[in-house]
Amino acid sequence: MATLPTQNVYSKMRDMHWSPKERTIARRAFDRALHRELEATIREAKQKAERIKEPDELWGLERYLTRRRKEIDAKYEFKYSVLLLVLADLVREGGINLDQLHGLSEDKLRIVCDHAQSAA
Amino acid sequence: MATLPTQNVYSKMRDMHWSPKERTIARRAFDRALHRELEATIREAKQKAERIKEPDELWGLERYLTRRRKEIDAKYEFKYSVLLLVLADLVREGGINLDQLHGLSEDKLRIVCDHAQSAA
Repeated sequence: MATLPTQNVYSKMRDMHWSPKERTIARRAFDRALHRELEATIREAKQKAERIKEPDELWGLERYLTRRRKEIDAKYEFKYSVLLLVLADLVREGGINLDQLHGLSEDKLRIVCDHAQSAA
Repeated sequence: MATLPTQNVYSKMRDMHWSPKERTIARRAFDRALHRELEATIREAKQKAERIKEPDELWGLERYLTRRRKEIDAKYEFKYSVLLLVLADLVREGGINLDQLHGLSEDKLRIVCDHAQSAA
Protein backbone atom coordinates (compact mmCIF):
# COMPACT_ATOMS: atom_id res chain seq x y z
CA MET A 1 0.00 0.00 0.00
CA ALA A 2 1.62 3.29 -1.09
CA THR A 3 2.22 5.84 1.66
CA LEU A 4 1.48 9.52 1.07
CA PRO A 5 4.54 11.77 1.26
CA THR A 6 4.66 13.35 4.72
CA GLN A 7 4.05 16.88 3.43
CA ASN A 8 0.86 15.74 1.71
CA VAL A 9 -0.33 14.01 4.84
CA TYR A 10 -0.03 17.20 6.89
CA SER A 11 -1.94 19.31 4.39
CA LYS A 12 -4.51 16.54 3.95
CA MET A 13 -5.02 16.31 7.73
CA ARG A 14 -5.44 20.05 8.05
CA ASP A 15 -8.31 19.99 5.53
CA MET A 16 -10.13 17.04 7.03
CA HIS A 17 -13.56 17.35 8.57
CA TRP A 18 -14.15 15.55 11.86
CA SER A 19 -17.76 14.63 12.58
CA PRO A 20 -18.94 14.76 16.20
CA LYS A 21 -19.03 10.95 16.24
CA GLU A 22 -15.44 10.73 14.96
CA ARG A 23 -14.29 13.24 17.54
CA THR A 24 -15.83 11.13 20.28
CA ILE A 25 -14.20 7.94 18.95
CA ALA A 26 -10.75 9.58 18.69
CA ARG A 27 -11.03 11.26 22.08
CA ARG A 28 -12.04 8.06 23.81
CA ALA A 29 -9.19 6.02 22.30
CA PHE A 30 -6.70 8.81 23.04
CA ASP A 31 -7.87 9.22 26.65
CA ARG A 32 -7.80 5.50 27.28
CA ALA A 33 -4.22 5.20 25.99
CA LEU A 34 -3.12 8.18 28.06
CA HIS A 35 -4.80 6.75 31.14
CA ARG A 36 -3.06 3.39 30.65
CA GLU A 37 0.31 5.05 30.18
CA LEU A 38 -0.13 7.16 33.32
CA GLU A 39 -1.22 4.11 35.32
CA ALA A 40 1.86 2.21 34.12
CA THR A 41 4.07 5.15 35.10
CA ILE A 42 2.50 5.30 38.56
CA ARG A 43 3.12 1.56 39.05
CA GLU A 44 6.73 1.90 37.89
CA ALA A 45 7.35 4.92 40.15
CA LYS A 46 5.94 3.06 43.16
CA GLN A 47 8.22 0.09 42.46
CA LYS A 48 11.25 2.33 42.03
CA ALA A 49 10.45 4.16 45.28
CA GLU A 50 10.05 0.91 47.16
CA ARG A 51 13.49 -0.27 46.06
CA ILE A 52 15.33 2.95 47.04
CA LYS A 53 18.15 2.41 49.49
CA GLU A 54 20.66 5.13 48.54
CA PRO A 55 20.29 8.87 47.83
CA ASP A 56 21.46 8.30 44.24
CA GLU A 57 18.38 6.18 43.65
CA LEU A 58 16.21 8.94 45.10
CA TRP A 59 17.50 11.43 42.51
CA GLY A 60 17.23 8.66 39.93
CA LEU A 61 13.51 8.54 40.70
CA GLU A 62 13.33 12.32 40.21
CA ARG A 63 15.05 12.01 36.81
CA TYR A 64 12.73 9.15 35.82
CA LEU A 65 9.64 11.22 36.68
CA THR A 66 10.91 14.29 34.82
CA ARG A 67 11.69 12.19 31.74
CA ARG A 68 8.31 10.44 31.77
CA ARG A 69 6.43 13.74 32.25
CA LYS A 70 8.19 15.26 29.24
CA GLU A 71 7.71 12.14 27.11
CA ILE A 72 4.00 11.94 27.92
CA ASP A 73 3.49 15.68 27.35
CA ALA A 74 5.16 15.45 23.95
CA LYS A 75 3.36 12.27 22.89
CA TYR A 76 -0.23 13.09 23.84
CA GLU A 77 -1.03 16.17 21.80
CA PHE A 78 -4.74 16.34 21.08
CA LYS A 79 -4.84 18.64 18.05
CA TYR A 80 -6.92 17.56 15.07
CA SER A 81 -4.19 18.78 12.69
CA VAL A 82 -1.82 16.04 13.89
CA LEU A 83 -4.17 13.67 15.70
CA LEU A 84 -4.05 10.89 13.12
CA LEU A 85 -0.26 10.64 13.44
CA VAL A 86 -0.55 10.65 17.23
CA LEU A 87 -3.12 7.84 17.01
CA ALA A 88 -0.88 5.99 14.53
CA ASP A 89 2.04 6.12 16.99
CA LEU A 90 -0.23 4.77 19.73
CA VAL A 91 -1.47 1.96 17.46
CA ARG A 92 2.12 1.05 16.63
CA GLU A 93 3.07 0.94 20.32
CA GLY A 94 0.00 -1.05 21.28
CA GLY A 95 -1.57 1.74 23.33
CA ILE A 96 -4.55 1.76 20.95
CA ASN A 97 -6.13 -1.20 19.19
CA LEU A 98 -7.35 -0.48 15.64
CA ASP A 99 -10.80 -1.74 16.66
CA GLN A 100 -11.11 1.25 18.97
CA LEU A 101 -10.93 3.53 15.92
CA HIS A 102 -13.78 1.77 14.13
CA GLY A 103 -16.15 4.48 12.93
CA LEU A 104 -13.53 6.91 11.62
CA SER A 105 -13.81 7.65 7.89
CA GLU A 106 -11.86 5.45 5.52
CA ASP A 107 -9.34 8.15 4.54
CA LYS A 108 -8.56 8.78 8.22
CA LEU A 109 -8.08 5.09 8.96
CA ARG A 110 -5.85 4.85 5.88
CA ILE A 111 -3.52 7.53 7.26
CA VAL A 112 -3.45 5.88 10.69
CA CYS A 113 -2.65 2.44 9.23
CA ASP A 114 -0.06 3.74 6.77
CA HIS A 115 1.82 5.59 9.49
CA ALA A 116 1.50 2.89 12.10
CA GLN A 117 3.22 0.58 9.63
CA SER A 118 5.72 2.97 8.07
CA ALA A 119 7.05 4.19 11.41
CA ALA A 120 7.51 0.63 12.67
CA MET B 1 26.22 37.72 74.38
CA ALA B 2 27.12 40.24 71.67
CA THR B 3 27.09 38.90 68.12
CA LEU B 4 29.77 39.91 65.64
CA PRO B 5 28.51 41.91 62.66
CA THR B 6 28.04 39.54 59.70
CA GLN B 7 30.81 41.15 57.63
CA ASN B 8 33.30 40.62 60.43
CA VAL B 9 32.26 37.01 60.82
CA TYR B 10 32.97 36.28 57.17
CA SER B 11 36.41 37.85 57.23
CA LYS B 12 37.13 36.18 60.57
CA MET B 13 36.13 32.77 59.20
CA ARG B 14 38.28 33.23 56.11
CA ASP B 15 41.35 33.75 58.30
CA MET B 16 40.73 30.83 60.63
CA HIS B 17 43.05 27.89 60.84
CA TRP B 18 41.46 24.43 60.97
CA SER B 19 43.56 21.74 62.61
CA PRO B 20 43.30 18.20 61.22
CA LYS B 21 41.39 17.17 64.34
CA GLU B 22 38.92 20.04 63.91
CA ARG B 23 38.42 19.15 60.25
CA THR B 24 37.58 15.60 61.25
CA ILE B 25 35.11 16.74 63.91
CA ALA B 26 33.37 19.16 61.54
CA ARG B 27 33.28 16.68 58.67
CA ARG B 28 31.83 13.94 60.85
CA ALA B 29 29.05 16.16 62.24
CA PHE B 30 28.29 17.55 58.78
CA ASP B 31 28.17 14.10 57.15
CA ARG B 32 25.96 12.69 59.88
CA ALA B 33 23.46 15.54 59.53
CA LEU B 34 23.44 15.17 55.74
CA HIS B 35 22.94 11.43 56.05
CA ARG B 36 20.01 11.90 58.43
CA GLU B 37 18.39 14.47 56.17
CA LEU B 38 18.75 12.22 53.12
CA GLU B 39 17.35 9.26 55.04
CA ALA B 40 14.35 11.36 56.12
CA THR B 41 13.81 12.45 52.52
CA ILE B 42 13.94 8.84 51.30
CA ARG B 43 11.35 7.84 53.91
CA GLU B 44 9.09 10.76 52.96
CA ALA B 45 9.41 9.99 49.23
CA LYS B 46 8.51 6.33 49.82
CA GLN B 47 5.42 7.34 51.80
CA LYS B 48 4.36 9.84 49.13
CA ALA B 49 4.84 7.23 46.39
CA GLU B 50 2.82 4.66 48.30
CA ARG B 51 -0.11 7.08 48.60
CA ILE B 52 -0.21 8.03 44.89
CA LYS B 53 -3.53 7.36 43.22
CA GLU B 54 -3.76 10.11 40.59
CA PRO B 55 -1.27 11.44 38.00
CA ASP B 56 -1.28 14.84 39.74
CA GLU B 57 0.22 13.18 42.80
CA LEU B 58 2.89 11.56 40.62
CA TRP B 59 4.04 14.96 39.35
CA GLY B 60 3.68 16.24 42.91
CA LEU B 61 6.29 13.65 43.91
CA GLU B 62 8.56 14.89 41.12
CA ARG B 63 8.21 18.49 42.38
CA TYR B 64 8.88 17.37 45.95
CA LEU B 65 12.09 15.58 44.92
CA THR B 66 13.32 18.52 42.85
CA ARG B 67 12.68 20.92 45.74
CA ARG B 68 14.40 18.68 48.29
CA ARG B 69 17.41 18.14 46.02
CA LYS B 70 17.87 21.89 45.59
CA GLU B 71 17.35 22.60 49.29
CA ILE B 72 19.87 19.95 50.34
CA ASP B 73 22.40 21.08 47.71
CA ALA B 74 22.14 24.67 48.94
CA LYS B 75 22.26 23.79 52.62
CA TYR B 76 25.17 21.35 52.71
CA GLU B 77 28.08 23.35 51.42
CA PHE B 78 31.33 22.03 52.86
CA LYS B 79 33.64 25.02 52.43
CA TYR B 80 35.74 26.11 55.39
CA SER B 81 35.06 29.78 54.59
CA VAL B 82 31.36 29.35 55.46
CA LEU B 83 31.36 26.06 57.37
CA LEU B 84 30.71 27.53 60.80
CA LEU B 85 27.51 29.19 59.59
CA VAL B 86 26.43 25.96 57.90
CA LEU B 87 27.07 24.10 61.18
CA ALA B 88 25.20 26.83 63.09
CA ASP B 89 22.14 26.37 60.86
CA LEU B 90 22.27 22.63 61.45
CA VAL B 91 22.57 23.12 65.22
CA ARG B 92 19.57 25.44 65.14
CA GLU B 93 17.49 22.92 63.19
CA GLY B 94 18.51 20.03 65.41
CA GLY B 95 20.51 18.23 62.69
CA ILE B 96 23.66 18.62 64.80
CA ASN B 97 23.97 18.50 68.57
CA LEU B 98 26.52 20.92 70.05
CA ASP B 99 28.22 17.97 71.76
CA GLN B 100 29.22 16.68 68.34
CA LEU B 101 31.31 19.83 67.84
CA HIS B 102 33.24 19.36 71.07
CA GLY B 103 36.94 19.77 70.22
CA LEU B 104 36.58 22.82 67.96
CA SER B 105 38.47 25.89 69.16
CA GLU B 106 36.64 28.31 71.42
CA ASP B 107 36.38 31.08 68.81
CA LYS B 108 34.83 28.64 66.33
CA LEU B 109 32.29 27.40 68.85
CA ARG B 110 31.47 30.99 69.73
CA ILE B 111 30.56 31.75 66.10
CA VAL B 112 28.47 28.59 65.82
CA CYS B 113 26.58 29.33 69.06
CA ASP B 114 26.05 33.01 68.26
CA HIS B 115 24.62 32.24 64.86
CA ALA B 116 22.57 29.28 65.96
CA GLN B 117 20.88 31.60 68.43
CA SER B 118 20.67 34.78 66.36
CA ALA B 119 19.09 33.05 63.35
CA ALA B 120 16.50 31.34 65.53
